[in-house]
Amino acid sequence: MKRQTIVIGIAGGSASGKSSIASQLYEVFQGNHKVKIIKQDDYYKDQSHLSFEERTKTNYDHPMAFDTELLVHHLQQLKKGETIEKPIYDFTLHTRSEKSETIDSRDVILLEGILVLAEKKIRDLCDIMVYVDTDSDIRLIRRLKRDIEERGRSLDSVCQQYLTTVKIMHEQFVEPSKKYAHIIIPEGGYNTVAIDLLMTKIKSIVE
Amino acid sequence: MKRQTIVIGIAGGSASGKSSIASQLYEVFQGNHKVKIIKQDDYYKDQSHLSFEERTKTNYDHPMAFDTELLVHHLQQLKKGETIEKPIYDFTLHTRSEKSETIDSRDVILLEGILVLAEKKIRDLCDIMVYVDTDSDIRLIRRLKRDIEERGRSLDSVCQQYLTTVKIMHEQFVEPSKKYAHIIIPEGGYNTVAIDLLMTKIKSIVE
Repeated sequence: MKRQTIVIGIAGGSASGKSSIASQLYEVFQGNHKVKIIKQDDYYKDQSHLSFEERTKTNYDHPMAFDTELLVHHLQQLKKGETIEKPIYDFTLHTRSEKSETIDSRDVILLEGILVLAEKKIRDLCDIMVYVDTDSDIRLIRRLKRDIEERGRSLDSVCQQYLTTVKIMHEQFVEPSKKYAHIIIPEGGYNTVAIDLLMTKIKSIVE
Repeated sequence: MKRQTIVIGIAGGSASGKSSIASQLYEVFQGNHKVKIIKQDDYYKDQSHLSFEERTKTNYDHPMAFDTELLVHHLQQLKKGETIEKPIYDFTLHTRSEKSETIDSRDVILLEGILVLAEKKIRDLCDIMVYVDTDSDIRLIRRLKRDIEERGRSLDSVCQQYLTTVKIMHEQFVEPSKKYAHIIIPEGGYNTVAIDLLMTKIKSIVE
């Protein structure tokens, strides 16, 4: 009998290093088709009924921005051994794209996103809950570098978004979800010892 | 060739649950003689030159109370594959006892104590650094139960000791050492998912 899918929830603030942890873990097992990453971001709500300008006004750091019902349904399906059609979000158009990705059930799903531990329905489906805890100044520096250097945005615009939504939503929803974590990992992707602990656990599941 | 000893440092506040984690891990591997617990408390300084009354005045939550030099020397010896004579502390006489325990080098040493991450010399010898993070009110409740119900002390005496030394030393030395941890474990011995992660890692080392 096929073993039931294990879901490892990886939450943490914006630019905390959670994607980096998920992708480092994924890389190790990439060859054997037993581990898959699902990003919570792909479950942003469909906004095709809104104008482009209305879409840009959405608060993307608020739990309401996510289609949690669909994510929960998909995780349940994967746990039952079923295949899902994961939505793909179009970040340039700020809505769900018309494409989707077929994901079959795996031994381990790495579920990564700022709010995966903030929703009880999602927590109930996570076997291991990880919170990546990185100081807010370090996270801000990473965002500044990414958004200014890589995406060509202005310092003012990045700081304003940070102060008006990112920081407020972090303190209201992300940080409080830390208390549900089984383990807290400081510093994200640079913490090779913590990544090795998770890697060893995944190895024990898939091998 | 014998592999080098791996030291897992397990720090955290008084009554955080670190001993419980260490002993649960030890139990799993007790049969195969490859894992050993070393308690930092056994390395309290020898106080045989002091009167009993003087000994009771020692601040046992301060780094100066510990013979860190001896602990570091012993860890280095174990890492070299050598055997040590671990001191045994006599908590009724408040000094090092005349007995010692012979410990031969093991695959994994679980080094448990409030200040094992507070000392750089000890951190440098730890391969995995764990901080057990339990809320201060929960830790106080556990101390009250232990010291009043099990040890027959008065509420006043327990609270006074807590406020004058335990809390102050915790905030000055223990809590700041959390930032060195590779993983932070909330709730100590009740966190079976985190214990399983460490258990799986130890298993991968000793088997």
